[in-house]
Amino acid sequence: MWQLFQFPLCPFSRKVRLLLGEKGVGYDLVRESPWERRDEFLDMNPAGRTPVMVDDKGTVLIDSWAICEFFEETVNKAPMINGTAINRAEIRRLVAWFDEQFFADVVAPLMHERMKKRLIDRLSPDARVLREAMKLALNHLDYTDYLLDHRNWLGGATMSLADLTAAAHISVADYLGGIDWRGHEQTKRWYSGLKSRPSFRPLLSERMEVISPPQHYDKVDF
Amino acid sequence: MWQLFQFPLCPFSRKVRLLLGEKGVGYDLVRESPWERRDEFLDMNPAGRTPVMVDDKGTVLIDSWAICEFFEETVNKAPMINGTAINRAEIRRLVAWFDEQFFADVVAPLMHERMKKRLIDRLSPDARVLREAMKLALNHLDYTDYLLDHRNWLGGATMSLADLTAAAHISVADYLGGIDWRGHEQTKRWYSGLKSRPSFRPLLSERMEVISPPQHYDKVDF
Repeated sequence: MWQLFQFPLCPFSRKVRLLLGEKGVGYDLVRESPWERRDEFLDMNPAGRTPVMVDDKGTVLIDSWAICEFFEETVNKAPMINGTAINRAEIRRLVAWFDEQFFADVVAPLMHERMKKRLIDRLSPDARVLREAMKLALNHLDYTDYLLDHRNWLGGATMSLADLTAAAHISVADYLGGIDWRGHEQTKRWYSGLKSRPSFRPLLSERMEVISPPQHYDKVDF
Repeated sequence: MWQLFQFPLCPFSRKVRLLLGEKGVGYDLVRESPWERRDEFLDMNPAGRTPVMVDDKGTVLIDSWAICEFFEETVNKAPMINGTAINRAEIRRLVAWFDEQFFADVVAPLMHERMKKRLIDRLSPDARVLREAMKLALNHLDYTDYLLDHRNWLGGATMSLADLTAAAHISVADYLGGIDWRGHEQTKRWYSGLKSRPSFRPLLSERMEVISPPQHYDKVDF
């Protein structure tokens, strides 16, 4: 059985969990707060980041990209980087888009202001930073609306790792109150479909200590 | 023929170019300065980042990870993400290590202080930021020394995308005067071997306007 080291609001761990859920790979959750920089965790992953996966034989998988590619290569069920080489490049472009741009513009500032400041420093969030992150989130939702005007799913004709990655980051931003859904009907419909999937339900029911999500957060109809 | 949009000190474009060189894929260079946010470039890649590759048929490949996986999948020569699924996960972990940690700790601050400030804002670099980046570079070289004590190449028994990615980032940091090679013999020997490869020679001979590298930069013996 795999163990997955993570914390409830880690978007990169959520991405991996959605993939494992779709592929039917079982795992136990181990709570890890990377900001505590626990020695045993740093010995396992010198980068000090979640997610990390470990199995009974001592195999250690590190980094959400490496982990997703590993399970894509070793588990045939529910391929999530699929199609021609060009289709696969488009899926990976969008994974990188959400892991880098959306994370840096939206998720990282929200996590810093609403989670880390509260948990670690006992400080209040900076309203200016929150406003800027929420404004950038709207630009990103304009882009996903545009993609979904032209395609069934973000990465192409079928559901892919692009959708799982986007949903992972959007769900963390939504938990932290950073998403204004008004006026983004295509993305809302797409996200509602993902929320109803069995791979997504367990994530939506979990809570991070001290921080509560908005009312609509775990509802398929929102 | 492929066109590769890049600028001489883009580490992510260097990674792609080293891979293309090893695989014998031809391409023309197109100079792109992403900080100018040229409309035609943003139409091609809304993320506004290099590298981007375009072929005669209008195929557009975006993001260094997606591009490297594309050529790894479509060109059999010189496999660079090779071995068992676990080996491949280790290679990808190290690619992510250099693209994220080494880039954020070392390359990004050096590029900001020594390139962008000079080219765009006509400002002097902040000596404190430079010192911190150079200190973190030494920690990273300790880690590559450690890896090379246990393995022939960074990612395992054979040369891989981990080596190409590390060399790409280290070469940009070295160009910008950020690497003190004293006391890092294993990494120096490994880097000297990479520098002598035909895939690396053209990169080392290029110069970024206004900014000159240190004397040792393009020498195999340094």
